Amino acid sequence: MSLTDDLLRANAAYVEVFDASGLQQRPLKELAILTCMDSRYTAQGVIGLALGDAHVIRNAGGRVTEDAIRSLVLSAVLLGTRACVVIHHSDCGLFGRSDEELRQRVADVAGARVTFDFLPFHDLEQSVRDDVHALRACPYFPEGYEIVGFTYDVRTGRLQQIDDSP
Amino acid sequence: MSLTDDLLRANAAYVEVFDASGLQQRPLKELAILTCMDSRYTAQGVIGLALGDAHVIRNAGGRVTEDAIRSLVLSAVLLGTRACVVIHHSDCGLFGRSDEELRQRVADVAGARVTFDFLPFHDLEQSVRDDVHALRACPYFPEGYEIVGFTYDVRTGRLQQIDDSP
Repeated sequence: MSLTDDLLRANAAYVEVFDASGLQQRPLKELAILTCMDSRYTAQGVIGLALGDAHVIRNAGGRVTEDAIRSLVLSAVLLGTRACVVIHHSDCGLFGRSDEELRQRVADVAGARVTFDFLPFHDLEQSVRDDVHALRACPYFPEGYEIVGFTYDVRTGRLQQIDDSP
Repeated sequence: MSLTDDLLRANAAYVEVFDASGLQQRPLKELAILTCMDSRYTAQGVIGLALGDAHVIRNAGGRVTEDAIRSLVLSAVLLGTRACVVIHHSDCGLFGRSDEELRQRVADVAGARVTFDFLPFHDLEQSVRDDVHALRACPYFPEGYEIVGFTYDVRTGRLQQIDDSP
């Protein structure tokens, strides 16, 4: 079986039970989540969301990048979300790494030098605080747009609110 | 109740039933998914994945951006994924829009002109093809890294494989 065959077979089972009723383009809870690509949790699971409730933006670390801002601004301005929840997690692949180490790893494996920054971090709570502040400084969100930050513990499933005073 | 209170209350219910056993940092199926932030589906649901199976990268449209490449390369080189599944979907907020229209919308709502491209598209299958080709042209993936593309129909739940010949 090829990867494509496996995916289509799994999807056929999903189609059997799928029900699109009640789902619409604009998120029902007017919420966007920015979090890591990590495989061990879903944003929906961790905060009890149903299909249709919220936009979910995921990248390595859950970091605020130009692409995350592109997505969050579109979510807010075009599709009516009014708040963003930033969640970074324990045991992240970016934690405690250096950019130089990661670039060397790519060079060793793929034979090419990357030109971008991998955005590693060394303090989990501070990385949430930094990203909450970066979003608050962004001029593209509507008046009253709310931004809150949490850490997520992959061993316990627990969210912890991050005090985001500067 | 504040947003934070709501989230923490929902998370407390998750923590009650959460079981971290079997979960590890490296995705068990050695797979990464790149898809849209849309609220109406999860990548895990659509292709029958369990927690721990795959990295999930989500942004507006599921587009290949520098940030998506940062995440996918980290996923492959540091955390052992060997394939990427690109999924764009029907009724996407970016479909049929123009960059100028979206920039104007932000200017109207927030009073600031964005400097980036929103990456709208006008042909769903072609946007998948374009992004599959963009990833294949990226020099940072290990030898043998596989990239496949699909569309997802938000009304039926069905994936469709995209012929990605140029």
